[in-house]
Amino acid sequence: MADAITTRADDYSQWYIDIVRGAKLADYSPVRGCMIIRPNGYALWENMKAALDGMFKETGHENAYFPLFVPQSFLAREAEHVEGFAKECAVVTHSRLIDDGEGGLKPDPESEIGEPLVVRPTSETIIWNTYADWIQSWRDLPILINQWANVVRWEMRTRLFLRTMEFLWQEGHTAHATKQEAVEETLRMLDVYTTFAEDYMAMPVLRGVKTASERFPGAVDTYCIEALMQDGKALQAGTSHFLGQNFAKAFDCTFQNENNELEYVWATSWGVSTRLVGALIMTHSDDQGLVLPPRLAPTQVVIVPIHFNDEQRATVLEVARRIEQELADAGIRVELDASEAQRPGWKFNEYEVQGVPIRLAIGPRDVKNENVELARRDTREKEIVPQKGLTARITELLDRIQEGLYNRALQFRQERTTAVDSYDDFKAALDEPGGFVLAHWDGTAETEARIKEETKATIRCIPFTDQLRGLDEPGEDLLTGKPSEQRVVFARAY
Amino acid sequence: MADAITTRADDYSQWYIDIVRGAKLADYSPVRGCMIIRPNGYALWENMKAALDGMFKETGHENAYFPLFVPQSFLAREAEHVEGFAKECAVVTHSRLIDDGEGGLKPDPESEIGEPLVVRPTSETIIWNTYADWIQSWRDLPILINQWANVVRWEMRTRLFLRTMEFLWQEGHTAHATKQEAVEETLRMLDVYTTFAEDYMAMPVLRGVKTASERFPGAVDTYCIEALMQDGKALQAGTSHFLGQNFAKAFDCTFQNENNELEYVWATSWGVSTRLVGALIMTHSDDQGLVLPPRLAPTQVVIVPIHFNDEQRATVLEVARRIEQELADAGIRVELDASEAQRPGWKFNEYEVQGVPIRLAIGPRDVKNENVELARRDTREKEIVPQKGLTARITELLDRIQEGLYNRALQFRQERTTAVDSYDDFKAALDEPGGFVLAHWDGTAETEARIKEETKATIRCIPFTDQLRGLDEPGEDLLTGKPSEQRVVFARAY
Repeated sequence: MADAITTRADDYSQWYIDIVRGAKLADYSPVRGCMIIRPNGYALWENMKAALDGMFKETGHENAYFPLFVPQSFLAREAEHVEGFAKECAVVTHSRLIDDGEGGLKPDPESEIGEPLVVRPTSETIIWNTYADWIQSWRDLPILINQWANVVRWEMRTRLFLRTMEFLWQEGHTAHATKQEAVEETLRMLDVYTTFAEDYMAMPVLRGVKTASERFPGAVDTYCIEALMQDGKALQAGTSHFLGQNFAKAFDCTFQNENNELEYVWATSWGVSTRLVGALIMTHSDDQGLVLPPRLAPTQVVIVPIHFNDEQRATVLEVARRIEQELADAGIRVELDASEAQRPGWKFNEYEVQGVPIRLAIGPRDVKNENVELARRDTREKEIVPQKGLTARITELLDRIQEGLYNRALQFRQERTTAVDSYDDFKAALDEPGGFVLAHWDGTAETEARIKEETKATIRCIPFTDQLRGLDEPGEDLLTGKPSEQRVVFARAY
Repeated sequence: MADAITTRADDYSQWYIDIVRGAKLADYSPVRGCMIIRPNGYALWENMKAALDGMFKETGHENAYFPLFVPQSFLAREAEHVEGFAKECAVVTHSRLIDDGEGGLKPDPESEIGEPLVVRPTSETIIWNTYADWIQSWRDLPILINQWANVVRWEMRTRLFLRTMEFLWQEGHTAHATKQEAVEETLRMLDVYTTFAEDYMAMPVLRGVKTASERFPGAVDTYCIEALMQDGKALQAGTSHFLGQNFAKAFDCTFQNENNELEYVWATSWGVSTRLVGALIMTHSDDQGLVLPPRLAPTQVVIVPIHFNDEQRATVLEVARRIEQELADAGIRVELDASEAQRPGWKFNEYEVQGVPIRLAIGPRDVKNENVELARRDTREKEIVPQKGLTARITELLDRIQEGLYNRALQFRQERTTAVDSYDDFKAALDEPGGFVLAHWDGTAETEARIKEETKATIRCIPFTDQLRGLDEPGEDLLTGKPSEQRVVFARAY
């Protein structure tokens, strides 16, 4: 039996760790801040990758791969970029280890390399250095490239999936002839992320633009999707940056336009990471373990046979295998667990902790009555259903579970989204009900910083106003009373 | 028009570079020894990954992900392993860059990290350190894990795809309860690699075991597949290692067997890398550019419309789109290039350089006669064929091209495989016809080293004898006259 999972009410942080470990998603590693993504966690990430990759290709992007290492001088080329990343990066300085004379190893002083290399924290610099070679004329544009890669940021406080020193991600880097095209691309990819979060992860998100202080280092505008976790904290789930001509200027990347004039190229970049696995866990899971939306679940249906002797085993397995085949033929990701190393009760618990959306149990009586026991992971309801018509029932049920998870998360968010007009109400709402607080802000970094200092709440985004139905009137800043064009979204955040 | 490609006869090395650059597969990067894999090259690698990943999963493996960084002390745990990798690795020593006072950056001396980290050259150490945590009992075995990752080896002499400082690969790492199971796994994965090389890459390979001096550092036995390139040099295309209990002992990884005895776990590891892209290029390509086997070609069929006015354009494109749709519906990877930025002649050349297996051209006359012009990349033959039945013809032709490429490569290898019994014949055969030379060897490292020094030929493998039809008799070493059980495969190699 797996160790019991701490309840959310008892200790939310420990609950999260218990889920990650209990569902065998990831482990800590001997390298501080780095994690080991176990097969269950990686299969989830693979499904996320496949869905996102398909959407990237549908919107005209191609994958490529750029080097892991960035010469340190490249980072320095864009002033805000270096400010943002130089403070926390892994620096390669030597190319050889030698005996340290005490039975161990040390970097060979003679192998010190000329220019230190940084393990990429993100790839704008190395990519724009390359684009400067690739782009001469308007005919070479747009360039629509995505990269699946690992990146490293030297974080001091790490949490599995949510914040790790090394993480896996995708980073799109596009080059355009006009500002308008680049802005359109930035928003198009924000839409792709929104669709992915809502339709695949069943995780509702707010879309908007970051304030200057929360912008990506080097961006003109950072757009984001923000999700709400079950502890009432916000989580930035994806960002899409309009980079203007900042990187083109830093790397002297120009093109001849159709009028034979030389112009700087316009840029975007956008990314999501293995952090989404953490977001998925914290959006749907419960005190019994992981809960997975069917569209991303590596296994959508698990079949557990129950038998007490060899004769029963044969008849039960025959039916189980037939059902497995039928479900597989319908494109459902099904697994039959016929192993005898563990008892059915152990398996029930294990698949519950692992979040498999539907569990079927088949025993001798079910064979006789042509039924199966069907258990839903999301509601934990069980029912006896006929084998006849089972595939159609499950196909429909998987859709219903997917939709149900989304609606439950949306309702949770709605119950924890409060519009306030006074600072007292603001502070009260951050504690109860918690979650997103919509309030007016005067647009200054000073006010933003003061609120953050006093309440730990940050501006998650300046939301697109279509999400503010009925709340999109202008108003006055909570603290300063200065005019505000629209409400912004505050929350305490991961 | 793309730059002309150097012919193989003129300068084989330059020809290779011209193909890589001309077909837009990869570029050099500003980081010495690292390459940029461009979309055309990456799409090829993605197709290779998809095929291999499917075969890994069919044979029961799961993917996972382990950290990029390995503590330097881990490398030292296995004596041969550290010997093999410590001399050429990227060492991370600092976690922050600061202003160097001269407008640039330098590693912040105060950010020096406690124990230097090595960027993984391979992951046996970090993985076996983890397996020691995961494995307690025989019930936890086998562990069948694969990882898709980037690795770094500090190579001084690099060539695009063939030998780069950073490369992409997969590394399988499995743990078993018995020696026999581990050996079977090692050979099973060698079979998977053989199938992939021959059936997907259309590249015949010799299978065998490495001599002690060519073994993976830390392995008991290294099995390999060896391919022959068009310049007569061999290329190691994949390796599968039986690691015995070496890493289990180094990381104290034991398990309780079914008799409640404590035993060390048995291990394998196996990998192929982006080097295979280089192998693919050098197996099939010609003086006109890249030649791709249809099963791996990102685009299998390209359609180039030809028209001289708007009216023609409309009718030609209508037919082109219909054919595109029919081919796509049949599961063929087809691309219609309707862009007007370039003329048909330019496109013909471009797709030839890029190795698209079949090119269709459709002009006004073809529309009228219900024909298309079909050009094969492998033979460069063109013919006019009816639109009717085109999909079936192309489906069949793609198979024929795949098979034809394999047969051509096999014939090439056969013509350049020589069995010799004297050292003079040996040296002559290495030069003419070149390629593989089958000869007797006394099994000593001394003889092997002397032959290498004198002829630059190495023992590529001790081949499985089923490949030696009629040549599998014992004999005497070329140089020493000492007894030899079987012939081994010599060649000059990449």
